[in-house]
Amino acid sequence: MSKLVLAYSGGLDTSYCAKYLSKDKGFEVHAVSVNTGGFTKQEISNIKKKAIELGASSYTSIDAVQTFYTKVVKYLIFGNVLKNNTYPLSVSAERIVQAIEIVNHAKKIGAKYIAHGSTGAGNDQVRFDMIFQIIAPEIEIITPIRDNQLSREVEIAYLKENGVDYPWEKAKYSINKGLWGTSVGGDETLTSHSPLPDTAYPSQLEERNPLDVKLTFTKGELTAINDEQGKPINNITKLNDVASKFAIGRDIHVGDTIIGIKGRVGFEAAASLLIIKAHHLLEKHTLTKWQQYQKEQQGNFYGMLLHEGNYLDEVMRNIEAFLKDTQKNVSGDVFVTLHPYRFELNGIASKHDLMNASFGSYGEMNKGWTADDAKGFIKILSNSGKIYNHVNKN
Amino acid sequence: MSKLVLAYSGGLDTSYCAKYLSKDKGFEVHAVSVNTGGFTKQEISNIKKKAIELGASSYTSIDAVQTFYTKVVKYLIFGNVLKNNTYPLSVSAERIVQAIEIVNHAKKIGAKYIAHGSTGAGNDQVRFDMIFQIIAPEIEIITPIRDNQLSREVEIAYLKENGVDYPWEKAKYSINKGLWGTSVGGDETLTSHSPLPDTAYPSQLEERNPLDVKLTFTKGELTAINDEQGKPINNITKLNDVASKFAIGRDIHVGDTIIGIKGRVGFEAAASLLIIKAHHLLEKHTLTKWQQYQKEQQGNFYGMLLHEGNYLDEVMRNIEAFLKDTQKNVSGDVFVTLHPYRFELNGIASKHDLMNASFGSYGEMNKGWTADDAKGFIKILSNSGKIYNHVNKN
Amino acid sequence: MSKLVLAYSGGLDTSYCAKYLSKDKGFEVHAVSVNTGGFTKQEISNIKKKAIELGASSYTSIDAVQTFYTKVVKYLIFGNVLKNNTYPLSVSAERIVQAIEIVNHAKKIGAKYIAHGSTGAGNDQVRFDMIFQIIAPEIEIITPIRDNQLSREVEIAYLKENGVDYPWEKAKYSINKGLWGTSVGGDETLTSHSPLPDTAYPSQLEERNPLDVKLTFTKGELTAINDEQGKPINNITKLNDVASKFAIGRDIHVGDTIIGIKGRVGFEAAASLLIIKAHHLLEKHTLTKWQQYQKEQQGNFYGMLLHEGNYLDEVMRNIEAFLKDTQKNVSGDVFVTLHPYRFELNGIASKHDLMNASFGSYGEMNKGWTADDAKGFIKILSNSGKIYNHVNKN
Amino acid sequence: MSKLVLAYSGGLDTSYCAKYLSKDKGFEVHAVSVNTGGFTKQEISNIKKKAIELGASSYTSIDAVQTFYTKVVKYLIFGNVLKNNTYPLSVSAERIVQAIEIVNHAKKIGAKYIAHGSTGAGNDQVRFDMIFQIIAPEIEIITPIRDNQLSREVEIAYLKENGVDYPWEKAKYSINKGLWGTSVGGDETLTSHSPLPDTAYPSQLEERNPLDVKLTFTKGELTAINDEQGKPINNITKLNDVASKFAIGRDIHVGDTIIGIKGRVGFEAAASLLIIKAHHLLEKHTLTKWQQYQKEQQGNFYGMLLHEGNYLDEVMRNIEAFLKDTQKNVSGDVFVTLHPYRFELNGIASKHDLMNASFGSYGEMNKGWTADDAKGFIKILSNSGKIYNHVNKN
Repeated sequence: MSKLVLAYSGGLDTSYCAKYLSKDKGFEVHAVSVNTGGFTKQEISNIKKKAIELGASSYTSIDAVQTFYTKVVKYLIFGNVLKNNTYPLSVSAERIVQAIEIVNHAKKIGAKYIAHGSTGAGNDQVRFDMIFQIIAPEIEIITPIRDNQLSREVEIAYLKENGVDYPWEKAKYSINKGLWGTSVGGDETLTSHSPLPDTAYPSQLEERNPLDVKLTFTKGELTAINDEQGKPINNITKLNDVASKFAIGRDIHVGDTIIGIKGRVGFEAAASLLIIKAHHLLEKHTLTKWQQYQKEQQGNFYGMLLHEGNYLDEVMRNIEAFLKDTQKNVSGDVFVTLHPYRFELNGIASKHDLMNASFGSYGEMNKGWTADDAKGFIKILSNSGKIYNHVNKN
Repeated sequence: MSKLVLAYSGGLDTSYCAKYLSKDKGFEVHAVSVNTGGFTKQEISNIKKKAIELGASSYTSIDAVQTFYTKVVKYLIFGNVLKNNTYPLSVSAERIVQAIEIVNHAKKIGAKYIAHGSTGAGNDQVRFDMIFQIIAPEIEIITPIRDNQLSREVEIAYLKENGVDYPWEKAKYSINKGLWGTSVGGDETLTSHSPLPDTAYPSQLEERNPLDVKLTFTKGELTAINDEQGKPINNITKLNDVASKFAIGRDIHVGDTIIGIKGRVGFEAAASLLIIKAHHLLEKHTLTKWQQYQKEQQGNFYGMLLHEGNYLDEVMRNIEAFLKDTQKNVSGDVFVTLHPYRFELNGIASKHDLMNASFGSYGEMNKGWTADDAKGFIKILSNSGKIYNHVNKN
Repeated sequence: MSKLVLAYSGGLDTSYCAKYLSKDKGFEVHAVSVNTGGFTKQEISNIKKKAIELGASSYTSIDAVQTFYTKVVKYLIFGNVLKNNTYPLSVSAERIVQAIEIVNHAKKIGAKYIAHGSTGAGNDQVRFDMIFQIIAPEIEIITPIRDNQLSREVEIAYLKENGVDYPWEKAKYSINKGLWGTSVGGDETLTSHSPLPDTAYPSQLEERNPLDVKLTFTKGELTAINDEQGKPINNITKLNDVASKFAIGRDIHVGDTIIGIKGRVGFEAAASLLIIKAHHLLEKHTLTKWQQYQKEQQGNFYGMLLHEGNYLDEVMRNIEAFLKDTQKNVSGDVFVTLHPYRFELNGIASKHDLMNASFGSYGEMNKGWTADDAKGFIKILSNSGKIYNHVNKN
Repeated sequence: MSKLVLAYSGGLDTSYCAKYLSKDKGFEVHAVSVNTGGFTKQEISNIKKKAIELGASSYTSIDAVQTFYTKVVKYLIFGNVLKNNTYPLSVSAERIVQAIEIVNHAKKIGAKYIAHGSTGAGNDQVRFDMIFQIIAPEIEIITPIRDNQLSREVEIAYLKENGVDYPWEKAKYSINKGLWGTSVGGDETLTSHSPLPDTAYPSQLEERNPLDVKLTFTKGELTAINDEQGKPINNITKLNDVASKFAIGRDIHVGDTIIGIKGRVGFEAAASLLIIKAHHLLEKHTLTKWQQYQKEQQGNFYGMLLHEGNYLDEVMRNIEAFLKDTQKNVSGDVFVTLHPYRFELNGIASKHDLMNASFGSYGEMNKGWTADDAKGFIKILSNSGKIYNHVNKN
């Protein structure tokens, strides 16, 4: 019997795949789920139970939260990456790491097939298949949902026929949760006009009193919250728990999918937004003008390629080298206040702060140079414009 | 007697200049103030009175609000320009237009001298002097405050000696108001750690109930609010009046000054922030991926050069041509809700909306292509990665 | 009978298509060739004869040389576009215009089908199909060579069986000629190691004595050669005739194809290289630093999208608006000397030349500023570095 | 007596400085010359003799060729940096390294003053002063030639009065030689119209027979010529000796100086041009499309900042990290043929060559995908254009 690794989430589509591939197609199905921060232990245990019941020969839960952070999230912070100035690319980034883990697992157990439950209309199929084909071109990819364009009803009926009768309640919104944010799609996001209702978001406003938080970054990474040291992934989770109660970090993104159509998706990503904005502020104090300029351009580009599943393009490693190098002095504290639905960046403290009063303050009487220096500076700065005007306007 | 044009604001520094230049230096002082949206009629009338009392031979108030919009603000909207993703460049942009108006006035009345009250430690001296020198290199620039590094006390004493005894109360914060925003500097902004207190901002929170607003853009310009047509500059003012009552659009920017030091400045710019973000959302629906990508890069660059007083560099005209051309289809309505201290973008309606369900919806069953098309697409998209991996990893 | 437009070149592949589609498939075949500068009148007459003999109901030769120039070549000059600093994108650019002409012709005569002879391994299929599908999604595309992966032998045999017995000599090199250059592929270009032999190039060295040529540009367009005015397309042809005799403009390009593999192709493009380099020199004298910087970035991007068949993306129109706006002062003469296999740019003369001695010469005693101005300039230019070093190095 | 370090070249200007500063100004002058590849041992010995005769207390020759390569030249190769696609930035790059060595020397010997012979009209004053002020703001900079705007005649007369009567023949062209190229300025370069005559260039055509050369790169560095291994700096020198006899690498650059005026300068840089073009070709075979795209943008930017003396901006280190990371697979041989006044790149051989026939050849029958794959690819690639056209053109 041929070994097949199935990317299994416990949902209807991949449950259909598990049954269909093991029973009808005769594969030895090895179900795998890759946790990038969205699953609790209980959920994993439920997923496992289902997988085995559906006919999987084995189930493996891969904990990839740290890998996710090290390979991708860290650079999204370094680059202040918000797709189109909005979306922290949470799902896009997860898929990459999940695909790499799955294909590595398949290679490890000697599987010749990988199956996943993506449709033919989204980004995920591209991200998954590209990674699989690049890392393991010898492995065949099987996608029953995409190939057969099955409806929910057909899938449920098939499972029932085969003795599987879980309660497949159709959620009004499809939710995808991970370390770097939760996406929310459905109903309102299918058209352009309306926001998601409050209730569509997993987190609800629970805190109404402003809360001060101190975020400490070390070389661009979040190493402490309120002076409590911790691993970045733990700090992200902790911060998210606190900030989600303020309903912070919600928005809707309208983006260009890899397949050329526009897509709209809601998200809540309290920690991501807070961290990126706080990190960005710290950079404004500690980086030079040109560092910031180049980082903005490179960060945008990095986000675009990541979004489009191009994570394995070698240019991504090159940009990561650039981004890492920019973080040498991005260390210090950022002072933030959480409010319902929003936050304020109050200021920073850093020994690398370039806003250093000993060199003269902006607009104040200056110490480092004279009025004549300033006039000479401006005169020579005007040279090219003066010449251009003289040559072309007379 | 030599004619001199003085950029006059009615404040202590330029009042000192008016007296000093007319009396001590014997210039025929022609005071000018250029209104880019910050002065009321009453203020202008007061400024005029003062100017004449201080010895100016004439006073001219130039209304440059429409010019300001046409020459600069329009392109800041087209380019979604927020310096370092934060600051709408309100003051930077005003200075350019003021300088151009002043130098044109000087040429018109045949003045051989222009004076202004800038110090030697800020951006404004660079913006003013560059424009003056480029457009009229034959005119000499005179800057008593910069040259003599005078203190408030010395200036007040001099004016008193000369019979001028206005109440020069030192405001805790220095405020600069214009069509595109109000800057607030002083005290907390001199160091890196703290935000401005609520009371430092000119507008205070007056409205607490959410308010829906519909913004209509035509080729990128704000042509109607709640279906009421109006000139863009009137719409900006109207929107700002409404939104300021929600205390929207406040923030602190930390930026790189032209003279190489970091500067921190608070601002409130309710209309600017609302318009840029709404405009940006409309673009996400109506522009292609590459249009957005290039606009982001060009917009950043345009903002940088504008900030640094390089408005007259011919590349700015070239980028304006680019930006204008991108706006052909940026027409439609954006639905916004104002809340205290924040706003939400709810959605858009546009006949140019590229999120067009007739071509298949994101993630849903697709109409325009088959599963095999998608698989072929991804296979060929993977080619370069596959080859790279094959060549370099084995 | 269904109307079908066939992109017909007179070669083996499209001759096979003509016969196969008219006889075996029963289409009413309307053969079309689009001349972008590669065909002589005699060749067109031969192509027509063949088309009709092979069963085409009609043959149309569309003269698109001027269109080609106006829509694409002009901007390649404005942008100094050389793909990877090497290749003038001659073929890539032609395909775009040919595709647009073909699909317009199909619409005009009410054809429901378009056929072309591309294989499934090259760039041309992408360029053709994308244009067809975008402009006329309702028209079906038929590609017998790609679909059936036919070999030369099979095609020749089929034609013989059907009474067509032209001498289909297999040229060692496949040649594609057009206004903007001639590509040469085959043998050596299939691997990475060797250049094409001299004899592979259509033009041979005939002139050995250096020849001075004066190229006159008006707003970026080549409007005269040696003071003889002419339409740009005529000037390009004329210049190419002269310069080809010097065997100028030959090279081999290694590029990334749209389908992800690397491809190597030789070319000779005497006029293109001369014009781009001369135009670029004129720009170095007439544009500001920032104009040149932005043009380089935009030109590269424009070339990339054009190469990849993305000509219809609206961003291309936006960049064209930018490029056009940069050419306002790119007028003047460029002095060139042609030598065997190379040319020299001797200098320029332009009333827009910014190298204007009246403002002080580089390195010479300066007139426009003093030593103190220069020192002030440098001091303030050093501020940010000084602060950075002070803050971070101690 | 106050210690002063004088950047001494042996020329008239710095000889004047040596005498003037030691005798008239009473400094303890420590003459230093920094060799970045332009001085022979004999020249250094002559310079030393002169320095001491003119009153210098000491003379130090610093050999900085390897430092020059390691700190700058290496990255210019990695980035294929040619300013405005023309000039290898030889002099610009040398000045940086010279300035750093000089200021380090001054710190080492405890000098409180640094003097150099730059005028107030060129780039070098900016490059020198910026480096000095950033690294050692406490050291005072003294520039007699700039400050006093002295003519040759005055300088010679002063030296004669003080018993120094060297033959100060005024060369028609001023020459600056270094590892990365030789600049040639004077006469024709002062205006825009004419090239330098052959005789203005230090090297003359000596070889007329084509010569094949094999250049081997290892991670982007030139590690062997014709299979003879050697240190990159030795390889550069060796290659330059060979190629200069072919009069290769000559051109005139027109550039934007830091002070805003245009400057024109001739150069010969046989090795630089050969290495950059060969390296670039190797990259076209070994890097992905996006790596090349980003390298082109970053390389241009790096060159601009280097040219303008901004070498110490931290962004330069960040870009160097990026560039270094891109070179991991840029290893292999490049085959070149030298001809009089030009060279040809014949091809490459590299185990990292991505033009790998096993994946299908460009335009040939493909192995890795089917016609249907290609059609699916193109169909989906057309989606966004199709939608745009549908929405906006009807």
